[in-house]
Amino acid sequence: MRVRNKPWADDFIKEHSDYIVEDPENWLGKWSQKFSKNQPIHVEIGMGKGKFIIEMAKKFPNINFIGVEIQKSVIALALKKLASEELNNVILVHTDGAGVNTFFNHHEISTIYLNFSDPWPKKRHAKRRLTSPKFLDSYAEVLKEDAPIVFKTDNRGLFEYSLVTFNNYGMHFEYVSLDLHNSPENEDNVETEYENKFSKKGPIYKAIVKFDNKKED
Amino acid sequence: MRVRNKPWADDFIKEHSDYIVEDPENWLGKWSQKFSKNQPIHVEIGMGKGKFIIEMAKKFPNINFIGVEIQKSVIALALKKLASEELNNVILVHTDGAGVNTFFNHHEISTIYLNFSDPWPKKRHAKRRLTSPKFLDSYAEVLKEDAPIVFKTDNRGLFEYSLVTFNNYGMHFEYVSLDLHNSPENEDNVETEYENKFSKKGPIYKAIVKFDNKKED
Repeated sequence: MRVRNKPWADDFIKEHSDYIVEDPENWLGKWSQKFSKNQPIHVEIGMGKGKFIIEMAKKFPNINFIGVEIQKSVIALALKKLASEELNNVILVHTDGAGVNTFFNHHEISTIYLNFSDPWPKKRHAKRRLTSPKFLDSYAEVLKEDAPIVFKTDNRGLFEYSLVTFNNYGMHFEYVSLDLHNSPENEDNVETEYENKFSKKGPIYKAIVKFDNKKED
Repeated sequence: MRVRNKPWADDFIKEHSDYIVEDPENWLGKWSQKFSKNQPIHVEIGMGKGKFIIEMAKKFPNINFIGVEIQKSVIALALKKLASEELNNVILVHTDGAGVNTFFNHHEISTIYLNFSDPWPKKRHAKRRLTSPKFLDSYAEVLKEDAPIVFKTDNRGLFEYSLVTFNNYGMHFEYVSLDLHNSPENEDNVETEYENKFSKKGPIYKAIVKFDNKKED
């Protein structure tokens, strides 16, 4: 999402440098230093305002969460939310999701979440979609063997595109819901800000997909 | 769909034996004899009352269509519709769709249509769904290399199941629509009776999928 520029963002980010990383490449191989416990890492790419990842961090204290977001005024809002909590298993990274393979090691990540990513509806912008093959290349590098991408969207076009792209990439489908909020699995669903607001307007789509191990070797 | 028993069905089928086959195994390798022209064969499995296949036959005179339906009182309704037309490129087969590989040769068929198949919603009945792996085995045998399965349904559970099953079977996704009637491709859509009646109640899902050639060799 686009939000208005936040004049306070720069100072606020500086003041809370424990919770936010602006030079992720320098943390390659050292992420465990940012957390109090060495435990599996889950990454949300395009984290937005942070509701999802903060709730997940509370719900799963045995997982370290990293939220990646490129827009400064958006990540500043997430940081504000995070700063008011006492959580030692979530940090934020201010950078472009396309570069995950420049700051995570091979097979370092246990789950990637993509929630309500920008649909980039024009065909000529398809490469910018977070589920396009170039992004999948990066995810395949950093995800552990058998680790899933968990993808939610309310955008029909993006979901159609993503199903075809995942499949054509050789990924394995674990789960598909075409109306998550009316599926039994919704019981465990952690909503994003956007999802909470827009789910009344139409179905929420969800897919859990994995890279084919054979292709990763 | 289930329809009431038709007392006239037996006699009507006998009277129109040019248009309907009840012993398809005896026509193995000889289907071209049932048509006036030797041209590609498209098969609809679970044809229902025949609107789709009859309209397709009118629209594509250069294709031979075969509609397969197991329920006698349903195929009798399709036959009634067909008997009132002057078409030499469509015949009906009264049998179980699971057996297509017993009456078609390997790589004989150019397209298989599955339209609004019975969803068999209970998990223990999953094997009866026309998109379950056992059925896919039969389709893979009879479809030509690179020939598609064209699948439409309004049943969310069946579509979710089918996407996962097609993918897990190693099939290649060509096209997915999660709301066909609001997609640009709907312009060329030929509706079934059921689709025409029920599409106002929710989205029509469509997928075009192919068997991976490498796996067929």
